[in-house]
Amino acid sequence: MSLIPIRSGSASGSGQERRDAARNRELLLCAARQLIEECGADGLTMDKLAERAGVGKGTVFRRFGSRAGLMMTLLSDAEAEFQGRFMFGPPPLGPGAPPLERLIAFGAGRIGYVLEYGDLARAADHSVYNKFEVPAAVLWHRHIEHLLRAAGFDADPWLMAMSLSATLDPERLLHAVRVHGVSPERLEESWRQLVTRVVGSAEGGIPE
Amino acid sequence: MSLIPIRSGSASGSGQERRDAARNRELLLCAARQLIEECGADGLTMDKLAERAGVGKGTVFRRFGSRAGLMMTLLSDAEAEFQGRFMFGPPPLGPGAPPLERLIAFGAGRIGYVLEYGDLARAADHSVYNKFEVPAAVLWHRHIEHLLRAAGFDADPWLMAMSLSATLDPERLLHAVRVHGVSPERLEESWRQLVTRVVGSAEGGIPE
Repeated sequence: MSLIPIRSGSASGSGQERRDAARNRELLLCAARQLIEECGADGLTMDKLAERAGVGKGTVFRRFGSRAGLMMTLLSDAEAEFQGRFMFGPPPLGPGAPPLERLIAFGAGRIGYVLEYGDLARAADHSVYNKFEVPAAVLWHRHIEHLLRAAGFDADPWLMAMSLSATLDPERLLHAVRVHGVSPERLEESWRQLVTRVVGSAEGGIPE
Repeated sequence: MSLIPIRSGSASGSGQERRDAARNRELLLCAARQLIEECGADGLTMDKLAERAGVGKGTVFRRFGSRAGLMMTLLSDAEAEFQGRFMFGPPPLGPGAPPLERLIAFGAGRIGYVLEYGDLARAADHSVYNKFEVPAAVLWHRHIEHLLRAAGFDADPWLMAMSLSATLDPERLLHAVRVHGVSPERLEESWRQLVTRVVGSAEGGIPE
């Protein structure tokens, strides 16, 4: 393992300066989350953020580059937090519960995540990515595939994981909730039905 | 019922003129399908179509308005044909087979349809539509819901039909085939596994 800092720029200031920069970044993100909670992702502008955080607009742009950059930062923080929960967090979402329980919890967690951050994902211009090959999507797919295998499902788990992922597509979940008034609980219950039936009699694999 | 022609324009010519127009339209569509088969949807241009059909470019534009209009016409013909097959055609896709058999056949039919017409759908600029509310998508969703109910599935069939539809999303199917080299047979088998497990013990409803 190399000890050479990968981004030497971040090591150029004193320790205090770096701590200040990290704290300011956290303050800005915190203010951004507040604004989204109050007025939705569409209501989050660089002007409003500067005003809320009590800094100049130039500071906000220097930090995030653009509104899309700010959205991506918020999103990748949220994504990292969600990944941490399903990979290392407490059961049933994290390790330690039977695979089917973990699958059910994963769907519920992802539905919650999409309803909370779906707007952000739409606001961040991520059209440059192939949505199926975004690292997060690949990781979600692999996680479902892993749980299917652990539950003893052997009818092409890779492809079945792809199909199950499709049912959690953010655009579709948001459409169901907003246009058809489907409640998050109903989405979770339908996911539970789906994965329980798919895993079926293979159910009960070893908790891991 | 009114006997006044809705589109009086189409009644202005003689019977012969109308028959000629219909025949010319069919010839153009036929030439367009040939070109797509030979060089893919991207290779279908108004110039090439005019050349192949032996007509002036102006005729092609007068008939279809634009390349997107041509694509939509081809697509809606294909869509109508597919709808006819699953609604009125022979079993197991059409009526007369048990609901689960019809569900399995529907997925296989739709996978075939998407692999044949997916490029056309992408080429036709349909971004103006909400993709979940396009009449065809609504009809597909209702058809799956109907078959789930007929098979005795009662755990929120509307929402389960939405999830099952999601697994047949054209973009995803094309991605699986082109990027991951998944064969159509593998897609069909995975769909069969999925719906068989979802319908599960409720299986066997009355053929209708």
